[in-house]
Amino acid sequence: MATLADIGVSALINILTAFAFLLAFALLKIQPINDRVYFPKWYISGERSSPRSSRNFVGKFVNLNVWTYFTFLNWMPQAMRMSESEIISHAGLDSAVFLRIYTLGLKIFIPTAIVALLILIPVNVSSGTLLFLKKELVVSDIDKLSISNVPAKSIRFFVHIALEYLFTIWICFLLYKEYDTVASMRLRFLASQRRSVEQFTVVVRNIPHVSGRLVSDAVDTFFQKNHPNHYIGHQAVYNGNKFARLARRRGRLQNWLDYYQLKFERHPDKRPTVKTGFLGLCGGKVDAIEYYKRLIKDLDKKMTLERQKIIKDPKSILPVAFLSFDSRWGAAVCAQTQQNKNPTLWLTNWAPEPRDVYWRNLAIPFFSLTVRKFIISMSVFALVFFYMIPIAFVQSLANLEGLERVAPFLRPVIELKFIKSFLQGFLPGLALKIFLYILPTVLLIMSKIEGHIALSTLERRAAAKYYYFMLVNVFLGSIVTGTAFEQLHAFIHQPPTQIPRTIGVSIPMKATFFMTYIMVDGWAGIAGEILRLKPLVIYHLKNMFLVKTERDREKAMDPGSVDFKETIPSLQLYFLLGIVYAVVTPILLPFILVFFALAYLVYRHQIINVYNQQYESAAAFWPHVHSRIIASLLISQLLLLGLLSTKEAAKSTPLLVILPILTIVFHKYCKNRFEPAFRKYPLEEAMAKDILEKTAEPNLNIKAYLADAYLHPIFQSFEVEEELVQVRVDKHQTHEAASPSIELSSHSPLHVHSPSPPHHGYSASPPQSYPHYDYSTSPPQSYYYRPPSPPHYIQNYQV
Amino acid sequence: MATLADIGVSALINILTAFAFLLAFALLKIQPINDRVYFPKWYISGERSSPRSSRNFVGKFVNLNVWTYFTFLNWMPQAMRMSESEIISHAGLDSAVFLRIYTLGLKIFIPTAIVALLILIPVNVSSGTLLFLKKELVVSDIDKLSISNVPAKSIRFFVHIALEYLFTIWICFLLYKEYDTVASMRLRFLASQRRSVEQFTVVVRNIPHVSGRLVSDAVDTFFQKNHPNHYIGHQAVYNGNKFARLARRRGRLQNWLDYYQLKFERHPDKRPTVKTGFLGLCGGKVDAIEYYKRLIKDLDKKMTLERQKIIKDPKSILPVAFLSFDSRWGAAVCAQTQQNKNPTLWLTNWAPEPRDVYWRNLAIPFFSLTVRKFIISMSVFALVFFYMIPIAFVQSLANLEGLERVAPFLRPVIELKFIKSFLQGFLPGLALKIFLYILPTVLLIMSKIEGHIALSTLERRAAAKYYYFMLVNVFLGSIVTGTAFEQLHAFIHQPPTQIPRTIGVSIPMKATFFMTYIMVDGWAGIAGEILRLKPLVIYHLKNMFLVKTERDREKAMDPGSVDFKETIPSLQLYFLLGIVYAVVTPILLPFILVFFALAYLVYRHQIINVYNQQYESAAAFWPHVHSRIIASLLISQLLLLGLLSTKEAAKSTPLLVILPILTIVFHKYCKNRFEPAFRKYPLEEAMAKDILEKTAEPNLNIKAYLADAYLHPIFQSFEVEEELVQVRVDKHQTHEAASPSIELSSHSPLHVHSPSPPHHGYSASPPQSYPHYDYSTSPPQSYYYRPPSPPHYIQNYQV
Repeated sequence: MATLADIGVSALINILTAFAFLLAFALLKIQPINDRVYFPKWYISGERSSPRSSRNFVGKFVNLNVWTYFTFLNWMPQAMRMSESEIISHAGLDSAVFLRIYTLGLKIFIPTAIVALLILIPVNVSSGTLLFLKKELVVSDIDKLSISNVPAKSIRFFVHIALEYLFTIWICFLLYKEYDTVASMRLRFLASQRRSVEQFTVVVRNIPHVSGRLVSDAVDTFFQKNHPNHYIGHQAVYNGNKFARLARRRGRLQNWLDYYQLKFERHPDKRPTVKTGFLGLCGGKVDAIEYYKRLIKDLDKKMTLERQKIIKDPKSILPVAFLSFDSRWGAAVCAQTQQNKNPTLWLTNWAPEPRDVYWRNLAIPFFSLTVRKFIISMSVFALVFFYMIPIAFVQSLANLEGLERVAPFLRPVIELKFIKSFLQGFLPGLALKIFLYILPTVLLIMSKIEGHIALSTLERRAAAKYYYFMLVNVFLGSIVTGTAFEQLHAFIHQPPTQIPRTIGVSIPMKATFFMTYIMVDGWAGIAGEILRLKPLVIYHLKNMFLVKTERDREKAMDPGSVDFKETIPSLQLYFLLGIVYAVVTPILLPFILVFFALAYLVYRHQIINVYNQQYESAAAFWPHVHSRIIASLLISQLLLLGLLSTKEAAKSTPLLVILPILTIVFHKYCKNRFEPAFRKYPLEEAMAKDILEKTAEPNLNIKAYLADAYLHPIFQSFEVEEELVQVRVDKHQTHEAASPSIELSSHSPLHVHSPSPPHHGYSASPPQSYPHYDYSTSPPQSYYYRPPSPPHYIQNYQV
Repeated sequence: MATLADIGVSALINILTAFAFLLAFALLKIQPINDRVYFPKWYISGERSSPRSSRNFVGKFVNLNVWTYFTFLNWMPQAMRMSESEIISHAGLDSAVFLRIYTLGLKIFIPTAIVALLILIPVNVSSGTLLFLKKELVVSDIDKLSISNVPAKSIRFFVHIALEYLFTIWICFLLYKEYDTVASMRLRFLASQRRSVEQFTVVVRNIPHVSGRLVSDAVDTFFQKNHPNHYIGHQAVYNGNKFARLARRRGRLQNWLDYYQLKFERHPDKRPTVKTGFLGLCGGKVDAIEYYKRLIKDLDKKMTLERQKIIKDPKSILPVAFLSFDSRWGAAVCAQTQQNKNPTLWLTNWAPEPRDVYWRNLAIPFFSLTVRKFIISMSVFALVFFYMIPIAFVQSLANLEGLERVAPFLRPVIELKFIKSFLQGFLPGLALKIFLYILPTVLLIMSKIEGHIALSTLERRAAAKYYYFMLVNVFLGSIVTGTAFEQLHAFIHQPPTQIPRTIGVSIPMKATFFMTYIMVDGWAGIAGEILRLKPLVIYHLKNMFLVKTERDREKAMDPGSVDFKETIPSLQLYFLLGIVYAVVTPILLPFILVFFALAYLVYRHQIINVYNQQYESAAAFWPHVHSRIIASLLISQLLLLGLLSTKEAAKSTPLLVILPILTIVFHKYCKNRFEPAFRKYPLEEAMAKDILEKTAEPNLNIKAYLADAYLHPIFQSFEVEEELVQVRVDKHQTHEAASPSIELSSHSPLHVHSPSPPHHGYSASPPQSYPHYDYSTSPPQSYYYRPPSPPHYIQNYQV
């Protein structure tokens, strides 16, 4: 058990680490060479250009202005300068609302910390049970400040209960206000948004297959009949997954070709060679440039064939379509209603915005989704409950006696006082952090298997899984595993009322562990976040080996985006810790406050200067944030109940039983009141926007506007790169014999180029405003700065 | 503990009771004087008229045809003669699907009983543990046939597990087929239904109040804007609750007046008198006819004033309205979508059919609904868990030793062998039944407080509450209370895995109790149901004192309706008992089979000849039936798991853990697949019906058709009775100054008669086809044979 001194050492280390990171950031940031790593958002918005052009040679790489070195913390006030509405227009609503989670944390915990420290510390310290028991129990000094120090049956527990009530009311009040604000921000954002294709588009899934009939045909007949006044057409979805795979491979080859060409340009005397065998390690040596050119040529042929196949084979049209409506009202009606008497057919829903679509999952047959969901939920359960075993193992190592037994040769090192404190304070938190590092990726893959079709949904689902994981493994696991190993087994074999007792009793004992956790994960981790070490290294590597032109440099710049699926659940864990420990060990609250303040500054800076969100979900994650803070409240109430029942404060039980019930009622009320704003689009809003638009732009051709908006990006990229040679072949001209009389489906979703093999060199770069498609990443990822309306489509489009 | 002989005695008594009831029914039924009690449905459909007109004087009252006395059981084959489609058109889909629950029971339990009896009885009997333990344990002979007889750790338990699997699969298979059938029956029924007003009507609740603006005005503006193509108008809802109260009082007075007038006609020599004091027991004597005439006149004045007030006061218009649409499609769209950005305002939903509306709850302000729901769910919880105390008390009395101790003077009677068997076999079941008698009414009142606006919803909610009650008190209570008194307390303080064990162990011991319960409640109870003792007595009393004309006789006839809120939960209890005991004590199954067969015949007969449903919900209760049979399956699987774990058959645990998971997956699948058919109206269906209608009747005036369809019946009744003197005053003419320019709300929902006081004598009877409104019952109840379209409205209606 760590003592107060251990905590002090750990705090010192973590503060030093955090400062080191911040200092490194400050130094690296002002070097012109790193400008694209620390300010990519401004490059994307076009408001910043390379500072390297105007300097002398050294000044291009190193900052020679001495003055800037002294103001190395000036990013903090700078981060605070932007107002919320500016952030919304600069980075989107998701980012702005994400920052609100931190301010909510500060709003909750600043008054809570003040009240709890002022009232509870004196109450706890002045009654000294633990001082007498010290010999028997392994109890740290921290415990003197916690509820453990109050003797059983003490009247003082009513202070704790009163504070629990006070905090619950305070938190609920803030949550209500916040939900209200966010909901109206969302509606205002949606109302003020410019015209965008997803407002007019509905995705329909599980279109029933009628033999001898084309999917497009069936869709048109069905919706022309059932939505006659507003349906104007649809965009079929092609199974481009195989093509996308080929394209990705081509991208990799192109990268190698570029690399070798650049190498050759720099050393024209020596043509680069490559071995053709396994991983380039064996086989005969050939000329690298020629080799890759040949490979690319072969692949291009294959891709042409594949594209022909997609166009010709009606089976490549998936039973999914994006429906276009002439008004938001029509789309809202179609998205919210049931179409067919069989509720698993013709499933309509709002289309995600084009850059948010996860194309690969559109090909999943609908009937397998139930099975997939079932399998994944089973695996998540297994992962959540059996991932504990390695954590418990690591924590038993972090117990120093255990470590000495496993590795006796380390004893002399470990026995050094400083090292011992360091290990005891630092190791458990760090071990846990490493464990958690690979997890979000695994969970995202699991969510992808579940078959959601929007990236935002995928992230939210992954976040939910991550939250369960954190709750069980980090929170419960850390509390219980130390005392009882097989947590699940123990829980099942205990009476339900025993569970809060078991956990409740351990809660105050584990305060020190969570303090180190907050310092490692929260303080040093967040300071590391601002440093962006990984993108920095990757950018410089790319810069060294691949970059030829300024455009390439732009490509090498990876702004990334806020990793909602990881940060939001972590944040929720901090809320949980803060709420649970507020009345139990209030000394933990300042640690959490420091985290919230630092993280708020860091993320504000990053959102303003770095991150560029892939999609905009208009704060769709807020209901989850809200309900998980409510869950934290419930957990804290139950645990306090359990803790007090071991303290024989039986009279307090009825008081504490009412609290969770009231909290649940509050939650239900909030859910009814606010959640529909995040799930549905009210008709009144849709109609108001339609009318406004009709008066503002009476001649708008909405059909032309929507054309090809939901074309798989893999086909779009071709079009962009082959603008000059493209020949538009209408799908239905090809199929004239099969479906002679289709009038409405006159969209031409595939644009077949001329037989000449496409040229993919980056030198033939498209006009500035077009998405430059990057084969090396998954389709929609690099698709981030698509202009709202592609004018050249409209010209070619046959209305 | 009851022995096999006790069961025999109980069975004999109950069979005799059932036969006595059936015999009494057969005798009473063929008496012409009772014809209206046993065949009211045919009178209502107009296919039967009084058999008394054609006979001589005695023949009018007593059946003199001897032959009919010998064929007294012929109602059974007669009941079977009607086909299902005939039942649907004769009595509606609700009744037909209700009968399917019984056939489902037969389909489930006939094969189950055969397999279980053939396989399990030999398996259980041949291993005789209980024979040796007889001295220690109080075990009845029935237990020799049950799973208790199998020794611990026996390999034979795998037979039970295999059968549990087999039964689960069989039941799920039948449930799936049945859900499929019922869902398509429902959709076919809805599709084949004639045009009816609720197809075009949407109810909107919680219309926001804007000061200085009329509700009607706000509704028209809002829906004209947001549903411009289909909205054609609305029908305001007036708060007629006070008026209805007055009308009910007037009805009572009218009844007394009729009674005394009839008395005077029969004995013209003596004018009836009445005392004016408290309950007619004290005070001065006055002439009864004059007295009641005066009272009625006073009340009429009051009612006229009240009506004027309702018309003039804009506050009497509730923030609720029935919206009329020109097509089913428009109504379906409005009902399924969200209108306003505040999801608690402008709440739209399908309107229940007019006779299904529970008018009184429309006046409940919407914001109080959450509070009401919360309070009621708390009270239901209290009722379910604390109602047990009296039951436990009665059951401790039914324990004969306890009874002798409480009432020692009864000992000589109780000690008689026959009486003892009778008491032991009969009393616990009967006591429970009496307890349950008043419950449904209480639960219905609770549901009314919750604020649902449709009678069908009220009944379904009451049924749900009744089911929870039966589950906890009849099933769990009977099993556990005998062994552990404070069930809830015990459950909370046991590990969750212990609960199925505690119950599982007691399950086989309680088989005899449930057998007597089935016999008392199921056999004798159902036979009593066909006798209709209460309606019989009431009818003859009314006939004696109130009936003057043939129309009055028709009024006195009370067909009643299937009491879904009570019968469906009881049925679900039988399913639960059957499924739980199928593998534990299969000897119980024949008892359940007899119940299902008898009840099927009885209810088929009653539905064909007697009951007249108040409303048609198109089998909306089926999802509940389905999910509760699934719940029964889960309970049986958990209890078997618990039971086997006490038998130390640990190897079987994994096998039995998989089963509930699979059952839940099956349930989820069914829910997704079929439930929307019971909640939403698919647009395709709506559109198809609209198109069909448009081609069949191109000139239909839908606005005229819908006019006044949702007028509070209390106002409608006036109109019917005062056809000749009515003067139509448009609401909006009265309010001209306040709202000068309302174009669409030209409905005239209130029809004010001339100042002359209305005459309510039954002699001024309206034309045959109109609802003859009966003040003595609650508004919609006597409203059962309303014609689909009231032609006289259309003539007067200003389109």
